[in-house]
Amino acid sequence: MNAPTTHPAAETEIRAILAEWESAVRARDLNRIVARYAPDLVAFDAILALQFKGAEAYTKHWEACLGMCSGPMIFEIHDLQVRASEELALAYGLVRCGGAGPDGKEMVGWTRMTIAFQKLEGKWLVVHEHFSAPFDVQTNQALWLQP
Amino acid sequence: MNAPTTHPAAETEIRAILAEWESAVRARDLNRIVARYAPDLVAFDAILALQFKGAEAYTKHWEACLGMCSGPMIFEIHDLQVRASEELALAYGLVRCGGAGPDGKEMVGWTRMTIAFQKLEGKWLVVHEHFSAPFDVQTNQALWLQP
Repeated sequence: MNAPTTHPAAETEIRAILAEWESAVRARDLNRIVARYAPDLVAFDAILALQFKGAEAYTKHWEACLGMCSGPMIFEIHDLQVRASEELALAYGLVRCGGAGPDGKEMVGWTRMTIAFQKLEGKWLVVHEHFSAPFDVQTNQALWLQP
Repeated sequence: MNAPTTHPAAETEIRAILAEWESAVRARDLNRIVARYAPDLVAFDAILALQFKGAEAYTKHWEACLGMCSGPMIFEIHDLQVRASEELALAYGLVRCGGAGPDGKEMVGWTRMTIAFQKLEGKWLVVHEHFSAPFDVQTNQALWLQP
């Protein structure tokens, strides 16, 4: 089944925004990372908390996350799919992410990413973000799986 | 910041679809649970696998999940937010879910839910689903937190 209502121009805009964002994360540039977060964004991140309500709370979380790893940041979006209308857009895919821990040892794993955008006052803003790793029901451990 | 482009009529439709779906999960009615999955849906579930590609694969996963718990199914959507345009809609919130394990002991926890709908041939279908629990970076354990 095709997606007849997808707007190619909006999809192109969203892909460009995500490429810029991917580059901002790799550069550990907090201002650029959070530049498009809507004030009332709700974020479900992979670690630490059930949810982050609002851009301010989520920006602080990003700052803490950036402090967890030293050395080059690994942040690669793979298998990206985008569905876009004129007002809302949805992006989902896998993210290979990590960096070096305090001991210099590289920690890297595959996570799942969902990001939703809404065009507000003419600008695409992120209204919702969801990152996660699946877990094992028996052991309750996060699973680090290859795609 | 308000969401000036949200379509109230579409939002009402999505909320009704989710209420029906919540009731289908509680009733363990597989056909009703998967009724709106688009054939090319991509799902990131909380357990077992990194991703499920296509409605068929995800239906099998739902069947396995339903088999994991006996007794009354707990599945409550809380703090639901919906953003809808004429063609795409996004729903996110927290889900308190669980049931009784083989030993009859109740297992219940809070997870995060993101569901994206696209109107295809006049019908709202689920094109993407993302369920998860956050994990603890130190222990690698899934975290069962209260909202």
